[in-house]
Amino acid sequence: MNAVALRRGESAPAVIQKPMPEPAAGEALVRTLRVGVDGTDREVIGGAHGSFPEGEDHLVLGHEAVGVVEDPNGTRFSASDVVTPTVRRPPEGANGYFERGEPDMAPPDMCLERGIDGAHGFMSEYFTSPAESLVRIPESLAPLGFLVEPLSISEKAIQHAYASRSAFDWRPESALVLGNGPLGLLTLAMLDDYDRTYCVGRRDRPDPTIDIVERLGATYVDSRETPVRAFAVEYEAADLVYEATGHAKHAVETAAALAPGGVGALLGVPESWTFEVDGGDFHKDMVMNNKALVGSVNSGADHFRAAAERLAELPEWFIDALVTRVVGTDDVARAFENDETTIKTAVEFDTR
Amino acid sequence: MNAVALRRGESAPAVIQKPMPEPAAGEALVRTLRVGVDGTDREVIGGAHGSFPEGEDHLVLGHEAVGVVEDPNGTRFSASDVVTPTVRRPPEGANGYFERGEPDMAPPDMCLERGIDGAHGFMSEYFTSPAESLVRIPESLAPLGFLVEPLSISEKAIQHAYASRSAFDWRPESALVLGNGPLGLLTLAMLDDYDRTYCVGRRDRPDPTIDIVERLGATYVDSRETPVRAFAVEYEAADLVYEATGHAKHAVETAAALAPGGVGALLGVPESWTFEVDGGDFHKDMVMNNKALVGSVNSGADHFRAAAERLAELPEWFIDALVTRVVGTDDVARAFENDETTIKTAVEFDTR
Repeated sequence: MNAVALRRGESAPAVIQKPMPEPAAGEALVRTLRVGVDGTDREVIGGAHGSFPEGEDHLVLGHEAVGVVEDPNGTRFSASDVVTPTVRRPPEGANGYFERGEPDMAPPDMCLERGIDGAHGFMSEYFTSPAESLVRIPESLAPLGFLVEPLSISEKAIQHAYASRSAFDWRPESALVLGNGPLGLLTLAMLDDYDRTYCVGRRDRPDPTIDIVERLGATYVDSRETPVRAFAVEYEAADLVYEATGHAKHAVETAAALAPGGVGALLGVPESWTFEVDGGDFHKDMVMNNKALVGSVNSGADHFRAAAERLAELPEWFIDALVTRVVGTDDVARAFENDETTIKTAVEFDTR
Repeated sequence: MNAVALRRGESAPAVIQKPMPEPAAGEALVRTLRVGVDGTDREVIGGAHGSFPEGEDHLVLGHEAVGVVEDPNGTRFSASDVVTPTVRRPPEGANGYFERGEPDMAPPDMCLERGIDGAHGFMSEYFTSPAESLVRIPESLAPLGFLVEPLSISEKAIQHAYASRSAFDWRPESALVLGNGPLGLLTLAMLDDYDRTYCVGRRDRPDPTIDIVERLGATYVDSRETPVRAFAVEYEAADLVYEATGHAKHAVETAAALAPGGVGALLGVPESWTFEVDGGDFHKDMVMNNKALVGSVNSGADHFRAAAERLAELPEWFIDALVTRVVGTDDVARAFENDETTIKTAVEFDTR
């Protein structure tokens, strides 16, 4: 079968041939429909993130997948169920995080990530997965199911952010999303119950992401004009800040952008970078204004289920504008391109 | 009546004479028993924190009080009820924080703090307080009721820290307290259900605080030998870190000391201080290890009630070791002394 993989020593993905996978006991065989591409894939391809499976000369890419159960193999699924797979798998032997059903809370050295870190991904005509790592979604979502994984990332982050404010009567009204990539835009669309929303980017108009930001009713903030550290003064202190830039200065600046009692969800993964900060002001502001910062990575099956419900509610125009390209395996290089007209792309292996 | 106050332009508290206060409608008159002294009082006296009440030439000190209701004045209290007052009062007019019963969540410019910031404290023979700002405690706690306020600070911080971990199955086993002052020691005593506890200080043995740390079953960590940033490697990454030092570098270092899925409660209030940090490592670690930081200040009536229950459970030897001095108003200067034999002191105005 065809698979899209990164081979050791190469700097671009290629279509390779792999044998059809055979489901082990407890696993189902899934026929892949579409697999989304995100910034993590580009980091993996660029060598900044992730690792090859042990002893293998390639890594099958892709962690945002939707497919159809081809062979339930005795699991709770039926043939033709539409499913999305969660990303993490246990390393050699299991551990408490997997036993408790919370692999998303595992530290990096206690999990593998399919398509990213030490385990093959889903960019192949078929893949297998343990039943507990597959989430059934409505058939109507089959063409868009590759958006469930990124949405689930935000479902988890926002769940944890809200939990951190659950010890008092928190009434958030304003939200700031840092980053106008696909994750930032998906999150902005999720925050439609906020009175006022803002989205930070670094792009000139005309720009398709700015168009989406504004059509969602949010205010576009150009961080070249208004750095995040100045946001609260120039606009308003935000009850919720969602950071999806991976810009190292944004962790501390997120706190400065928060309103009293607010929470910042951190999702970006920057490299090491030493710089000066007023650590006293950061610390004092966190304390005197009861602020919280919550880091969040990955997501679990419950977050996938919440994400599927959310996906069904997102406006059609938004999805149409967000998904800028779906390509076949004959044109896979284009799926990984990233120019100013690209927002979200996917590789299509089959249709239902 | 006698009151212990800081007069404008002076750098030491003095006993002054004030008229007996008259309770307004909705207020009770309280006869003061004891008022505790803490680091905030020393900062107020040193001019580093707080402010005088508007138009006044002095500030009555003290925010950790216990007293007996002298005149219920039509409120829900009875004469001779033992009560502790919460600290925050609304500024001119009320605001949503007070209306919702959550003044502890108000930002600094939306509240006054009795004995600290813009409102007279409780270090006088009598004080008045709105009934909703008084918490009845058992009579048996009357001599120690001045410890309810500092305990309530930790009750709130720990409540918020746990809330931040409530979206998953958090099972904390190890806790690190930064600071061996009274608040650090009280918190260490509260964390008696942890398997392993650590307390960071900067003192040489023999030292009474180190003795308490060890008698509580905790490990004393000298930060001159093991800086907080090295704690996780030298000892173990902690599930809960409670910061009560006000050392600006400890906000970011708290994150480094945390285990995956851990939470750091920040309570110290440092001054501005710009220094270099690896903001990339901090940010990445927060995200990849699902860590949280929660700032917390002040406390509400529910936290006072929880603190009173906690106080009743603390071992007698611990309280005896913690409270190193109780002085009368004739010897008030000694209550504010702070040497290596001082842990917690209080000014006594009366006994039940």
